[in-house]
Amino acid sequence: MLCAMDTIDCIKRVRKSALTLSLMSDSQRNSLLEKIKKALDENRFELKSANEKDINSAREKGISDAVLHRLVFDDQKINSCLDSLSSVIKLECPTGKKLAVRELDEGLILEKVSYPLGVIGMVFEARPDAMVQIISLAIKSGNGIILKGGSEAANTNKALRSVIHSALVDDDYILLLESHSDVDQMLKMEGDIDLIIPRGSNKFVKYCMDNTNIPVMGHADGICSIYVSDKADLDLAINVIVDSKIQYPAACNAVETLLINESIAPSFLPVLRDALVSNGVKIHGDEEVCKYIDVIRATDGEYDMEYLALELNIKIVKTLEEAINHIAMHSSHHTDCIISTDREEQLTFFNCVDSADVFANCSTRFADGFRFGLGAEVGISTGKLHARGPVGLEGLTTYKYQLTGTGQVVKDYTGANAKHFTHRELM
Amino acid sequence: MLCAMDTIDCIKRVRKSALTLSLMSDSQRNSLLEKIKKALDENRFELKSANEKDINSAREKGISDAVLHRLVFDDQKINSCLDSLSSVIKLECPTGKKLAVRELDEGLILEKVSYPLGVIGMVFEARPDAMVQIISLAIKSGNGIILKGGSEAANTNKALRSVIHSALVDDDYILLLESHSDVDQMLKMEGDIDLIIPRGSNKFVKYCMDNTNIPVMGHADGICSIYVSDKADLDLAINVIVDSKIQYPAACNAVETLLINESIAPSFLPVLRDALVSNGVKIHGDEEVCKYIDVIRATDGEYDMEYLALELNIKIVKTLEEAINHIAMHSSHHTDCIISTDREEQLTFFNCVDSADVFANCSTRFADGFRFGLGAEVGISTGKLHARGPVGLEGLTTYKYQLTGTGQVVKDYTGANAKHFTHRELM
Repeated sequence: MLCAMDTIDCIKRVRKSALTLSLMSDSQRNSLLEKIKKALDENRFELKSANEKDINSAREKGISDAVLHRLVFDDQKINSCLDSLSSVIKLECPTGKKLAVRELDEGLILEKVSYPLGVIGMVFEARPDAMVQIISLAIKSGNGIILKGGSEAANTNKALRSVIHSALVDDDYILLLESHSDVDQMLKMEGDIDLIIPRGSNKFVKYCMDNTNIPVMGHADGICSIYVSDKADLDLAINVIVDSKIQYPAACNAVETLLINESIAPSFLPVLRDALVSNGVKIHGDEEVCKYIDVIRATDGEYDMEYLALELNIKIVKTLEEAINHIAMHSSHHTDCIISTDREEQLTFFNCVDSADVFANCSTRFADGFRFGLGAEVGISTGKLHARGPVGLEGLTTYKYQLTGTGQVVKDYTGANAKHFTHRELM
Repeated sequence: MLCAMDTIDCIKRVRKSALTLSLMSDSQRNSLLEKIKKALDENRFELKSANEKDINSAREKGISDAVLHRLVFDDQKINSCLDSLSSVIKLECPTGKKLAVRELDEGLILEKVSYPLGVIGMVFEARPDAMVQIISLAIKSGNGIILKGGSEAANTNKALRSVIHSALVDDDYILLLESHSDVDQMLKMEGDIDLIIPRGSNKFVKYCMDNTNIPVMGHADGICSIYVSDKADLDLAINVIVDSKIQYPAACNAVETLLINESIAPSFLPVLRDALVSNGVKIHGDEEVCKYIDVIRATDGEYDMEYLALELNIKIVKTLEEAINHIAMHSSHHTDCIISTDREEQLTFFNCVDSADVFANCSTRFADGFRFGLGAEVGISTGKLHARGPVGLEGLTTYKYQLTGTGQVVKDYTGANAKHFTHRELM
């Protein structure tokens, strides 16, 4: 539904309708996804016309190429939405899964079963294809979904919502909000919404956390580092660093800081510099780095910056430990990588770096739900609770403990002649 | 350590020292627990003397018997602490577990591995044995722990801390706070603490949530209900209800509201009333109930009350659906139970009641980490994220994604001749 009327009312209808969705079988939910697929395919013209309006007004406002590129919803993007729907349909159903079955005593069976969270509130950037992906993950996991997309995509999002509604009809479990005041209202409804996922600036994530009692899944900055050990394969290091920086510099999993072991600095830095500069990368270096290569002098504050552009920092460190300490001080706990052929060093790095993704000898750009084999993602969590790193369907579920007895009472399990629990795992 | 000096300093030392603990093997952590066990056993006199001070001043203040009972730390309580330590030692190590191993492509292996959360801040009631249990779970899971116990137990807690310190020596990963202002300071240190677990009143849990950016694991009220269906075994129902109310009325998993199907009300209510009244239970009933038995007339507000005493509400409902709706309005999402011999009804109840624990035909008092076979618990979570219901060692862990490659870059997996991911599960 489109929230033209009273927001509170609409959100309460999502809560109610989400229960119906949660009770559906996997094949019922998949048939909803099939209907959405068909409707998108058959209403390309309507979707593209709405998108054209957004594109034109974005151009008039002089919006950057990067944003325009995300905003486009053409046949290619529609096709990739259809592919993505197909792959979500194929994923294993994340709810109703028995996570544990334990006999507590004869005739007293405990089952830990996965369930939908309930209702998710999601704020996302001006990317219409993201809206389709989020709706598909919500339906597959049996959750109601409240969406607020970037305002630049308002026309496309409304058209998408109307096409999806024409396919599903009875779909109050999907709600598209249109204004910031709707978002503020949503943040207040803690009894009706189970999780807020804000994608966007750190500032916006903090705004949500400060203004709601609903749990917020933090999707914050990506300040990612790569440490190059004195035991590194240096050709491999160059390849991985270049990919981590230039393959898509605006992504949160692009590298921002390189930490180079001092003993390889004299030989490695000139080669590294050439590889980066020839790819258009602007380099900031600490005092030591400036001794070997001609770069911009880095200031301390720059180690806390997410450039999101062809720009990075290089710092010399004496040891692996110094690299780990630097990362502890400056990392956003997203993705950090070590380049080293020594397995001991890799494991020390894995154990001591407190980030969602810890990599050895590969590009930081692999930090992604699809590449990790999760099918798709609603975002990347930099928090440690509930879900960490790329968040797929599993992150949209919770569990219940279902205990079925035959009249057992606790009194019999206490005192002098207490019965004993068997605690026998049945799966 | 005891926080006699600067709180900020002490908490930062916990953070640093927790890393050392996280790097220990299971047998190293178990040997710490063995040392604690030995020290408690050998220092009974010191512990009991400190406890006597607390008991005396509690008596002077006229504190209730229920609180006094929890406050006592005598030989029996010490013995049960030793037993509890032994059982925690026996539990499987919760960290370093491979939760998934997946080949993303040849030579590019993703491992999802469980890790300690880092540092936990725990506020708990005046129960010295709880302090021992919490410390043992923290050490076993490799987490630093900051504790603030009820002030009535201040002397016993300090003595416990000092006995444990004499056994462990280098144990900055355990910090005992002594004042409310220390707790306020703790709530501000979001970079150094990963999770706050407040046990106590709903009001205190809300105070924590409103005054920190650290995730809070809600351990709120227990407003538990039992629905008795027209398809119930009524003898079983009486047994289960009596146990759920009287076995330990001050516990959060004791029942507060009974929902009775109207068709059994005339015959069942008089028997139920006798069973409850003969056990000293005070009954509040709705208008319908008052037609059949002589009870206090219930007001609507009482359905939102946690009596924690020999007192409960009875309400007549027409259908299972009405019972489910009542629970949705008034439950604290802790534990709710159905008494019915019909498996379909049980499953509808399990699917539609949004509580951590959903039971059929057994006492609500089974909602407990030890009884569930989790070994022990830090509390019962009424939230849906991260951990739900009784929270044991698993709830004190998070995970990291460890990706080990041989130089792979994302560029090769995009564009026209893109390599494909194998996404092969290796466990």
